[in-house]
Amino acid sequence: MDNRARQTPAFDMVLFGGTGDLVMRKLLPSLYQAHAAGLLAPSGRILALGRRDMGREAYLAYVADHARQNIKTNFDEAHWASFQERIDYLKVDASAPDDYRALADALPREEGRVTVCYLATAPDLFAGICESLAAVGLNREGVRVVLEKPLGTDLDSSNAINDDVARFFREDQLYRIDHYLGKESVQNLMAIRFANALFEPLWRREWIHDVQITIAEDLGVEGRGDFYDGTGALRDMVQNHLLQLLCIVAMEPPSNMESDSVRDEKLKVLKALRPFTEQDVASRSVRGQYKSGAVAGRPVVGYVEEPGIPPGSGTETFVALKAEIDNWRWAGVPFFLRTGKRMQERLAEIVINFRDVPLKLFPSPVGCHTANRLVIRLQPEESIRLYFLAKEPGDTMRLQPAYLNLDFHEMFKLRRADAYERLLLDVIRGKLALFMRRDELVEAWRWVEPIMESWQHSSIPPKLYTAGTWGPAASSALLSRDGVAWHEES
Amino acid sequence: MDNRARQTPAFDMVLFGGTGDLVMRKLLPSLYQAHAAGLLAPSGRILALGRRDMGREAYLAYVADHARQNIKTNFDEAHWASFQERIDYLKVDASAPDDYRALADALPREEGRVTVCYLATAPDLFAGICESLAAVGLNREGVRVVLEKPLGTDLDSSNAINDDVARFFREDQLYRIDHYLGKESVQNLMAIRFANALFEPLWRREWIHDVQITIAEDLGVEGRGDFYDGTGALRDMVQNHLLQLLCIVAMEPPSNMESDSVRDEKLKVLKALRPFTEQDVASRSVRGQYKSGAVAGRPVVGYVEEPGIPPGSGTETFVALKAEIDNWRWAGVPFFLRTGKRMQERLAEIVINFRDVPLKLFPSPVGCHTANRLVIRLQPEESIRLYFLAKEPGDTMRLQPAYLNLDFHEMFKLRRADAYERLLLDVIRGKLALFMRRDELVEAWRWVEPIMESWQHSSIPPKLYTAGTWGPAASSALLSRDGVAWHEES
Repeated sequence: MDNRARQTPAFDMVLFGGTGDLVMRKLLPSLYQAHAAGLLAPSGRILALGRRDMGREAYLAYVADHARQNIKTNFDEAHWASFQERIDYLKVDASAPDDYRALADALPREEGRVTVCYLATAPDLFAGICESLAAVGLNREGVRVVLEKPLGTDLDSSNAINDDVARFFREDQLYRIDHYLGKESVQNLMAIRFANALFEPLWRREWIHDVQITIAEDLGVEGRGDFYDGTGALRDMVQNHLLQLLCIVAMEPPSNMESDSVRDEKLKVLKALRPFTEQDVASRSVRGQYKSGAVAGRPVVGYVEEPGIPPGSGTETFVALKAEIDNWRWAGVPFFLRTGKRMQERLAEIVINFRDVPLKLFPSPVGCHTANRLVIRLQPEESIRLYFLAKEPGDTMRLQPAYLNLDFHEMFKLRRADAYERLLLDVIRGKLALFMRRDELVEAWRWVEPIMESWQHSSIPPKLYTAGTWGPAASSALLSRDGVAWHEES
Repeated sequence: MDNRARQTPAFDMVLFGGTGDLVMRKLLPSLYQAHAAGLLAPSGRILALGRRDMGREAYLAYVADHARQNIKTNFDEAHWASFQERIDYLKVDASAPDDYRALADALPREEGRVTVCYLATAPDLFAGICESLAAVGLNREGVRVVLEKPLGTDLDSSNAINDDVARFFREDQLYRIDHYLGKESVQNLMAIRFANALFEPLWRREWIHDVQITIAEDLGVEGRGDFYDGTGALRDMVQNHLLQLLCIVAMEPPSNMESDSVRDEKLKVLKALRPFTEQDVASRSVRGQYKSGAVAGRPVVGYVEEPGIPPGSGTETFVALKAEIDNWRWAGVPFFLRTGKRMQERLAEIVINFRDVPLKLFPSPVGCHTANRLVIRLQPEESIRLYFLAKEPGDTMRLQPAYLNLDFHEMFKLRRADAYERLLLDVIRGKLALFMRRDELVEAWRWVEPIMESWQHSSIPPKLYTAGTWGPAASSALLSRDGVAWHEES
């Protein structure tokens, strides 16, 4: 494969929060991988910003101590040495407008050269950073801004941030990142739907019974109790990641894969989500909070015992929802969404349950509730599996569940890009398709807010679940009302 | 698994042609496997008939020399010893009516006991055998007759045999065997179609572009030149095996899996086959004959150089046809049938080519003509493979062909029944679904005859093809007119 042809344009990648956790854990390791794969333009540079007064050498030493540890595969000293050449450090206090002149001076102005400002900072700094960038002309053509979540805590605060940012940057300069969309298996879900005639005819209410989307973490709040208690699972996971995955599953085929064609279709899905009434919140949502238990054999404390959590906190660490999409394709098909902390295992997957055959011609296997399902795994490993019924070998017509497995690694023997690497390359290349447009965000908040509000005003506390389980029993009950159960690996 | 519950009823299996090739190569080894798997009733007996005057011991020695060699898997001396106990030999000249009294005397009459008469003889003996069986009362309830192909060489001769047989046996006592229908992967094709909601919605003209059915042999006429020259590939393979496979692919879902429900649906397909006009034979059929060449690196002679073939013989050793089914489901979908001797390899497969997507959203992979295909392999190994396009790992949206593979052995870890074993068990159990009913035979001959006759009266000889290839170039041309090519394993 000729990687020269796939190289990015020339770029400067400016990392706000350059000594922070995200830069060390994800951004630099991802850029290293792209570098090692020959995908970065030779003149591409990385400029880390921070308040600390340190020189380039000190920063590189810090990076070597931190970022380097996070490169688990393909590490190579020669590649690392050449990668380091791209990196520089500049002392810039993001909240000090006067520091930005030095930043502007440090960025070469060349025709076609792209400047990416990655705001790996707290969102309350976003407005100030954008204003300061604009003040030194760094909102010019070719400058792109990457915004990390959380973008607000409700529709109003989200609008406030987006309004502030929009005073200085056009919408097509803004890259709101959701790393779930960068995952190989999510990309592949689009390819599988729209590049094959096999699946799309089935991808509708006539043939699909229900859809289940799960993002389960085995971790707890991990020292971020302060932040988390003001957020909760609904804001932290449902409003962004789960709804984005739902959009990828449910969207109509776009006319092309251009950014706005894809995002227009996703927006239509969000707009078609049936709003939750007060009554719906009671009947179609479950909120839970973990109590002490055990994860992987290790005892763990309950949520309210975690550091930084106020006693009696009513914040949810688990959400299960039954969403419905009021359009021609999906009317009547439940989309079950589920996310939680301190679950039995780390797992993210999309499950498409097909309807039963209209007539059972063969003796039914015991305990095989739904015959056909497509399972797209995002975590811990990425895979796609198609479950169906086949004849058991031998002299009968007895059926047995079987599955077809797509192992991408086995199939292609190609290096897989991490979600952040993929998305960073897309930013440099100016591809917006996998980033959230403002109107998507608005619709997502609009849908989530009635649930949030209802819970806030409710006198009923979250349902407790034992850490290390799949959440409160009400989560199973939510599905059993529709005659289904959460998918479990057999 | 409790094999007791799956055991056959008590039976006597009477093998006409008991010292012959089919009995040694297939029938006894298959019965041995069923025995070893505990599927045969303890009181089930096997009675081999032959003209030779030998006792049971001599026959068992003969069997040990011949049949035993053909048991390639699961051989076990203890099982073999107990299997032998079931076997007896009786000197019966099939064409000598007087010999049948001894046969009748040798068969115990018990309530519920089944008698299977397997006519592993030349078809010109069928009428006489049936008459002689009837003369000694062996057409009573519980007696079943298995008829091996060829059942005639055209509609008239086939009708003559069936009329003769029908004078003594009811249609539901007759088991016309086509061992392709006993194959695991053909059974599974039915299961996959009718036990899963996934495939049936796609199984129609809207989504399927064409169907290809191939039975290719690498062997030549192998000393059967005399027989073969009067038969040819059309009679030998198309009229029976290929059309039966076509029926399994094309049939509507039956109301149940009872014998006549299934056979009614197959019959409907045969009746819906568009007849070949004189003009169609010229444009939609290819007949070929192999000339000398090499198979697997070994030089082989041409058909007319084979022993027993008259010089200048015009018999076809290769046929390719474009069949069309005039019904609501299949109108306009070509079914390409192909069979030949001395082909590049031994291969039997059914290929379902799905239509392209209506709109190509992603860059198309080079040389990937049809995206989606389902390939059901019958020979040399049995497998089911679903080809589709997936996203190549990495930072692009480039597609690559991928496939999902169903390996039954890997999946189920169960013993697989050979086609003959499966069918023999079905006969003992009285299951007719996988055997051809007379009206199916009539329709198959009716469809094939115009092609046969046109070729007979044609002054154009068969197209020569080099032994060890995939047949004459005209075979590829037949498909390219519809914009497709024969499936080749990538």
